Parts: sequence; structure tokens; C-alpha cells
Amino acid sequence: MTRYKLTLEYDGAPYVGWQRQDNGPSIQAHLEAAIERFAGETVVVHGAGRTDAGVHAVGQVAHFDLERDKDEDTVRDALNFHLKPEPIAVREAAVAPDDFHARFSATHRTYRYWIVNRRAPLALDRGHAWWIPAPLDVPAMATAAQVLIGRHDFTTFRASECQAKSPVKTLDRLDIHCDGERIEFIVAARSFLHHQVRNFVGTLRWVGEGRWSAADLAGALAKKDRRAGGVTAPAHGLTLLRVDYDSGAHHEVSDPVEEQADQ
Amino acid sequence: MTRYKLTLEYDGAPYVGWQRQDNGPSIQAHLEAAIERFAGETVVVHGAGRTDAGVHAVGQVAHFDLERDKDEDTVRDALNFHLKPEPIAVREAAVAPDDFHARFSATHRTYRYWIVNRRAPLALDRGHAWWIPAPLDVPAMATAAQVLIGRHDFTTFRASECQAKSPVKTLDRLDIHCDGERIEFIVAARSFLHHQVRNFVGTLRWVGEGRWSAADLAGALAKKDRRAGGVTAPAHGLTLLRVDYDSGAHHEVSDPVEEQADQ
Repeated sequence: MTRYKLTLEYDGAPYVGWQRQDNGPSIQAHLEAAIERFAGETVVVHGAGRTDAGVHAVGQVAHFDLERDKDEDTVRDALNFHLKPEPIAVREAAVAPDDFHARFSATHRTYRYWIVNRRAPLALDRGHAWWIPAPLDVPAMATAAQVLIGRHDFTTFRASECQAKSPVKTLDRLDIHCDGERIEFIVAARSFLHHQVRNFVGTLRWVGEGRWSAADLAGALAKKDRRAGGVTAPAHGLTLLRVDYDSGAHHEVSDPVEEQADQ
Repeated sequence: MTRYKLTLEYDGAPYVGWQRQDNGPSIQAHLEAAIERFAGETVVVHGAGRTDAGVHAVGQVAHFDLERDKDEDTVRDALNFHLKPEPIAVREAAVAPDDFHARFSATHRTYRYWIVNRRAPLALDRGHAWWIPAPLDVPAMATAAQVLIGRHDFTTFRASECQAKSPVKTLDRLDIHCDGERIEFIVAARSFLHHQVRNFVGTLRWVGEGRWSAADLAGALAKKDRRAGGVTAPAHGLTLLRVDYDSGAHHEVSDPVEEQADQ
């Protein structure tokens, strides 16, 4: 048996999400079908992050096992061939240790969220950014976001259907940059609650609109009540950028590994 | 009569190109229809660059006249409303002098071409970049490209159907940068021959593959023969970035104004 680690890019628009579901096509199911067509083996593909319907990825990581050993580049090229014409690409396939687990071994997940803040609707970025026509105060958003950094009970930003055992997570990074009319959020943690990133963005929009101060955001966090938070930003602005793994050296584990929820 | 200058973004994929044609929908025709729905006037919209089928824009410029004066922001918002659901956006509408002409007054046109150079096919950038799986030598391409700068007879890079009177053009800029797997060409001139930018890119690919040296490229240019040049790069990697106009100060005019051809 050989375990393979895949690094994946996909456009989330046509899919019900990463995870196989009865109600439509998923990235996981397309990958499993491509592996079966290529290798003749029925496998389960495990993903690092269960991206929701419409959420994109440029650096999703997944693993699966093959009974019959294959060359890494052959795996990548053959899967890409069998994935056509889906907008799912295997950027890299690499042999991984038998105990590597795309989800449980992950030490860090980094998401990107794009807002385009301009009066004109989107043409080229349609489906890849949240269009907000009214001007946002990005420095105010970036400053307020810092109250979210660190270990907190994030119930205020947790979807009601979240299945994580604990609402306590450690947010390592929430940077907000402005590049012309594009506002980019970079959000990193070991793991997230369901819709946590999109709820951050939807709530920080209120700060950008001047409806909320940084103190209001801190107050909402302290309330530990989803009703105290803002709206959920749309899925199509969100992209799973990368997943990091321990290189073998000691790595501080801030949250239990089983808690990663859908984004 | 009031003349309006529009700055436009569009995804070129669904269109036969900028220009109104019998064989399918054009950006020009959609704009003219939106203006008629909004203002009740039948107008002709003049574009700065006649982008070909599949070519995108983030900064196309166009102008048109209205008999009945309208507020600039109203024009922008109303056109965007009436353009729905087309991927065409009016970024800006501004009143322009009566002698302003989007095409003839332009002093500079800047195009961007994107190649994604990696083994894996495109998922998120599909339709917005040319996928080239074999590794390209970008520094060699960037160096060789400099032989094209300046005033030359560009017959080697001119489509056979080009209607420009003269093949002599002045290329002001052809910069090639690499950002990870993305190769970005920025190409600027007062005006271009038909397919000139895409023929540059298709030919420079040969340099990147090591098939051609900078001297080969110079030799091809000197031959003044389209058969000496490389292939035409696909339309979907090309984007009209911006069009510049004389601010009123003296501006050196390198090429006759009527010569701008389709890209």
C-alpha cells in the first residue's frame, strides 16, 4: 500500500462542496472517480478542509491509498487527465508516510477572502469575490480584526449546524490588506468552526461601514452568541489557500485535531 | 449634446469581440442596447480598442453622445443596471469634451497577457490565462523581448487580415515578469497591428522553450514576413488594461492615430 498526498486547486462554483453528498457533485467524488478510472481501485479520498458549496481552493490537501504503487508524476498527470473537463486540478502528487493524514496531521489552515469594493458590479472577478458597492474603511476593519486574534470561545462566529465539540479555537492571523478596489483577508488557524471565516468577514463589514467599532466587535465576541455576530459572507469570495503540516520538528498544537469544521 | 467617456471592464468569453457583428453578441451592441433602454436614445458607442472574441478588458474606454444631459453617476449606475446579467461593467462614466474620441484621442494602449506555466491544468484561472505545461525560461524571454522595443516594421507579427495602412509601429514597452507559476506580459504602444500582442507572446514562447535565441527573434522581425513569426497566442490570456489620453500638454505622437487594429 502506498499513501499519496495531493495538492489541489478547484473552482468551487459547480460543486456542493468538498464532501461527497447525495444532492449533487462534489470535489471528493470527482477525485475518487478519477482515481478509480486511472488505477482501477476504489478508494476514499480524505481532504484537509471540507470546503462548503461554492468555496474555492488553490492549496487544498488530500490523501488516499493505492494497493499498486504508481509514480508520483504519473498519478498527477493521470488524475488531471481523468478529471477533465472539471475545474479541478492536481497541482502535485507525492508519496506520503503511511501515518500522514490530510485532515488530522494538518497544523495550519490558511484561507483568503476577497471583497471588491467599488460602485461598478463585477465582470472579471464575478464568482471569485464579494461585491460591496458602499465604501469600506479598511484600516478600521484591519485594526478591529486584531481583537479576534488568539484563543477565544468563537461561538459568536459559529454556524448553528457546527459539529465541533468545542467553540474554543486559536486564531493565529487575520490580516486585511487593500490593493486598489480589492480587499484581501488572510485568515490562519490550526482549525476553524463552521463558517467561522465567512462570519468574521460578514461581521467586519459592519466595522468597515462604520456601524460597529472595534469595541462593538470585542463585545460581540464576549457575548458567545451567534445572534450577536454579523451576517455570513458569501461562499464564492472564499478560497482555501494552503494547508501546513508538521515537518517532524516539535510543533505546538493549539487546538484538538478532530475539530476542523466546514468553511 | 453631451459626450460621455466610459471606462469598462468585461469578460470577453461570451462575445464575438468588442465590435458589433452579425454572427453573435458583442460588447458594443450590449452597451448600445443598455444606453437605449436607459436614455431612450439610439447611439453609436466608439471604443478605444477593438478587442477580439475572447479578449478581456479591465480598462477599455468608449464614448457616446446623449441629446439629453444626464448626471455622470446616474449614467454609470443605470448602464450597469441595464447591462445585467452580462459580465460587462461600467467602472466610470464621465462627461468628456465634445472633441474627445475614445479611439482617435488615445495616446497609449496597455495590454496584459497571462501565461500560467505549470504541469497541472488550470482550474481557477481557466479562461483568463494560457496554460503552458512545459517550463519556460522567463529571463531569456524578457531579454529577447527587448529587440522588439522601438519603431519597427512589425509585418512579422501582423495578422494577414490586418487593415492598418502601415506595418510600422512604435512599441514602447514589453515587460515580462514571473510571479510563481504566472508569467505576466505588459505591452504598451500608441497603437497595435491586428493580433500583434498575441503574436509577440506566441513567438516569445519559442524563446522560452529554448527553440529560439534573441538573435532568432531579431532575425524574424527583420524578415518582415508573417511566416517568420510564431503562433498566435490564444485570445483568453489577453486583457486590455488601460487606455491613456493626452491631458492637454504636448504629447509626442509616434504613430498615426487611425491605425489601431483589433487585438
